[in-house]
Amino acid sequence: MKSDIQIARAAQKRPIAEIAAKLGMGPADFLPYGHDKAKLTHEFVAGLTGRPQGRLVLVTAINPTPAGEGKTTTTVGLGDALNRIGKRATICIREASLGPNFGMKGGAAGGGMAQIVPMEEMNLHFTGDFHAVTSAHNLLAAMIDNHIHWGNALRIDPRRVTWRRVIDMNDRALRDMVIAMGGPSNGYPRESGFDITVASEVMAILCLATDLEDLQARLGRIVIGLSFEKTPVTAADIGAAGAMTVLLREALQPNLVQTLENNPALVHGGPFANIAHGCNSVMATRAALALSDYVVTEAGFGADLGAEKFLDIKCRLAGLAPDAVVLVATVRALKMNGGVARADLAAEDVAALTRGCANLGRHIENLHGFGLPVVVAINHFTTDTDAEIQALHDYCARHHVKAVLCRHWAEGGAGAEELARAVVAHAESGAAQFAPIYPDDMTLWDKIQTVCKRIYRADHVEAPPAVRAQLDSWQAEGYGHLPVCMAKTQYSFSADPAARGAPEGFTIPLREVRLSAGAGFVVAICGEIMTMPGLPREPAALRIGLDAEGRIEGLF
Amino acid sequence: MKSDIQIARAAQKRPIAEIAAKLGMGPADFLPYGHDKAKLTHEFVAGLTGRPQGRLVLVTAINPTPAGEGKTTTTVGLGDALNRIGKRATICIREASLGPNFGMKGGAAGGGMAQIVPMEEMNLHFTGDFHAVTSAHNLLAAMIDNHIHWGNALRIDPRRVTWRRVIDMNDRALRDMVIAMGGPSNGYPRESGFDITVASEVMAILCLATDLEDLQARLGRIVIGLSFEKTPVTAADIGAAGAMTVLLREALQPNLVQTLENNPALVHGGPFANIAHGCNSVMATRAALALSDYVVTEAGFGADLGAEKFLDIKCRLAGLAPDAVVLVATVRALKMNGGVARADLAAEDVAALTRGCANLGRHIENLHGFGLPVVVAINHFTTDTDAEIQALHDYCARHHVKAVLCRHWAEGGAGAEELARAVVAHAESGAAQFAPIYPDDMTLWDKIQTVCKRIYRADHVEAPPAVRAQLDSWQAEGYGHLPVCMAKTQYSFSADPAARGAPEGFTIPLREVRLSAGAGFVVAICGEIMTMPGLPREPAALRIGLDAEGRIEGLF
Repeated sequence: MKSDIQIARAAQKRPIAEIAAKLGMGPADFLPYGHDKAKLTHEFVAGLTGRPQGRLVLVTAINPTPAGEGKTTTTVGLGDALNRIGKRATICIREASLGPNFGMKGGAAGGGMAQIVPMEEMNLHFTGDFHAVTSAHNLLAAMIDNHIHWGNALRIDPRRVTWRRVIDMNDRALRDMVIAMGGPSNGYPRESGFDITVASEVMAILCLATDLEDLQARLGRIVIGLSFEKTPVTAADIGAAGAMTVLLREALQPNLVQTLENNPALVHGGPFANIAHGCNSVMATRAALALSDYVVTEAGFGADLGAEKFLDIKCRLAGLAPDAVVLVATVRALKMNGGVARADLAAEDVAALTRGCANLGRHIENLHGFGLPVVVAINHFTTDTDAEIQALHDYCARHHVKAVLCRHWAEGGAGAEELARAVVAHAESGAAQFAPIYPDDMTLWDKIQTVCKRIYRADHVEAPPAVRAQLDSWQAEGYGHLPVCMAKTQYSFSADPAARGAPEGFTIPLREVRLSAGAGFVVAICGEIMTMPGLPREPAALRIGLDAEGRIEGLF
Repeated sequence: MKSDIQIARAAQKRPIAEIAAKLGMGPADFLPYGHDKAKLTHEFVAGLTGRPQGRLVLVTAINPTPAGEGKTTTTVGLGDALNRIGKRATICIREASLGPNFGMKGGAAGGGMAQIVPMEEMNLHFTGDFHAVTSAHNLLAAMIDNHIHWGNALRIDPRRVTWRRVIDMNDRALRDMVIAMGGPSNGYPRESGFDITVASEVMAILCLATDLEDLQARLGRIVIGLSFEKTPVTAADIGAAGAMTVLLREALQPNLVQTLENNPALVHGGPFANIAHGCNSVMATRAALALSDYVVTEAGFGADLGAEKFLDIKCRLAGLAPDAVVLVATVRALKMNGGVARADLAAEDVAALTRGCANLGRHIENLHGFGLPVVVAINHFTTDTDAEIQALHDYCARHHVKAVLCRHWAEGGAGAEELARAVVAHAESGAAQFAPIYPDDMTLWDKIQTVCKRIYRADHVEAPPAVRAQLDSWQAEGYGHLPVCMAKTQYSFSADPAARGAPEGFTIPLREVRLSAGAGFVVAICGEIMTMPGLPREPAALRIGLDAEGRIEGLF
């Protein structure tokens, strides 16, 4: 088998105008970026209002393990398969962050024969969206310090400015710093730092905004810190929202690329899946729904974090309602959930597999709790044995859930046609009765408790008095209607990354809460969350360069 | 008369493929960025080797004044006029920096009826080149601190790291900072800061590189600081040059846009004109020479800085030889050089004009000293009187230089046809005998003295012993063959910005020298040079936003 990058480079890409034409777009409806990338224009997207909507399918997964689940690969394979069985399907996924590629190697969007291309550009600058987010975020930061420097009419407390700066780079030296040193002409010294761009609230806003007007309104609501009177100061108070919107005007337009099988994919936006909601943009998903019979999308991490946020944050805020959910599992990952070490995964172990299915089962229950029909996609690995696959089928049958063995990694869309047919059957059955897990008018604290108890199955949520007081204070200030965005380890239902399977009898420690008033959620941090990665001892950058033919080597 | 932005928005732009076709390019020879921007592919540019070369015309100016000279406007008008008289002409200019637009308002590329479009995109993200420079620069910075963090095998002295970080933003709070605070996991605290992206040596390198291989070699030669043994540490030592090249691969491709009259313009790169050489990329100029009868280009500031660097740095390093120089002057600016205050410019003052012509005359002498024929372009303002224009004509006639009154601002290319014919006559006369003002093998100190005495007409150059010792040390380390890049006020031949006209009897104070080993020059700093601007009290960003039709307002 060839590597992902070898397959991607050998792709028979069609000109992007042909892919656009599959969606009914003419040459004036998109802006080309090279010959294989394009942006849907704002005018075209605005003109889609009122069109019939396609069906929305969420691909999510069991809790991730080092064995790999193949969530994006399944998203791509399912999209290709739906097209093969006669449904016009569009895939919607997130963009990749630039910085981490220079630490660890960059990644494919999908894998094997189920990929989105062009792979190199998607791992580098792509269409510049993340650079635009960086610029908009940092303009606000510059305007804050500039406002303080020139007299501070808003009485911003420099000690309580929470708006940091961002850069799309892994750079630990920028985590914590004292800025504005060097004398009066450089401003008032204060402690601050940089996060990586995907952690920017501007990124989350870009992905939740429904149009330019909504974008500007959300940017204006960003809370950058407190005044000396401890009242929130917003980006609108600073006067930055208009200029930030101008910087993001192009970036808000969804990006169109293609799968290896020349089917359309909208790859747009990339918020963190811990302190943010981890989904591609609402603009892309909505445009795709107006242009396709089926939209296949995914959300970061496993279903406890990713699907929950997709459903409780993105779908709630954007008025979306999925028609079906695909829950991806692999025999290998379930065996790790059942206690097998990574080194022992090659050996058949039906008992461990069956134990690990408790993880799968809990995700199925949770997704049913949102009123959604579930299909389990068994993403096939060559080491899977017939007995293991049969045991997994049996488990799903006992839980009245359809499970389908898929070979899209090896075979492309052809390997996922049975999955596609199962998804169509479920989506068109009318079984979906989607509702978020908590109502808007529940208190913030109760929302956090609801997710922890109903999704994670925690016995208790522990929070220091200061955190509870902060939630009460936001409740009083009018932010109580917002959904909560949980930042917790993705490896377990609990807060302990080592507790695989379906742990019980645990407490979730709520350490900190943050207000993302522009994005429109309150972040509940349950553990250590790193918002600025560092480079490893031997960063991938050391091996990255151009070969004699000018092709990129070492990035993958 | 409409404003520049009103004219630019009303432009009858042709699809970029049509503009490319004027240069003989097929659809595979360029990468479109939207419908009105494109990049020439590396493959296409590489295929131009060995083609017959067009003639190269440099547009430069007298020392700038607040009255405005219209150097870029004349560059554009001349390019359009050459096309009108039957010469295939391409314009080459620099890209604009994003950050400063949010302080003061953004600017047109040219003005009136002599502009390059699309104006908005060229003032915002354009094709992402500056973002790529920012990323490449900051990757090197991250790898330096990462190297020190993980054991510092190169024994880099953290106190002597001179490589800062960059951002395309006016942000005074980032000028001076202490980074890597917060404990061992964040690295070794040290003092550092950010410059604006156009001040990055990576920007200068991008503009001097002749191809990807040369780019990588130059990036590798960047000196980032000293080891504890005081030996220079390079980007190649850090292992960053390959990854930086990958980040710059797309950015190295010249950008194609068009004038209001639908003639081709390559707008590519934008290094500072003080600590760097202030010219568009060698890639763009060379490609244009292979594709056109005439290439019209310009250099930053007046001829004492801009033309000198264009000739002694860019032409020397890239093996270019101009065929003619256009020296732009206005009656208004010459009157200011003759002592008139800005408020009094509307009143006729032939005596002041004649006094101010001393500035023009010295630039003419200097350009003749490079072996180049000169045409003076009198950029017409409606307040100019016949007597003033006649006096300027008479001055030029006495100095045996052709002067041409131009009305391209009001009339477009039609207003500069006489200038175009004069340029063609000079360029095709064979009069040009270009040679740089100093040879490669002169010492660095003598090169600095040569420019100060022969171009600026200083009596002396003063330098502290430490600066002289630094020059001697680079001389000994093998950097003596490099040209020098003068950083001095652009408003005067001297180091005193108030000394207009043709000052005499002054000393140039050389305060500091910096090695740009990757770009390939030694920077000689004669005065205060700001490499990170701040925002003003009322930044333009406060007024920037989208209007009801989604158009940008407040940027211009």
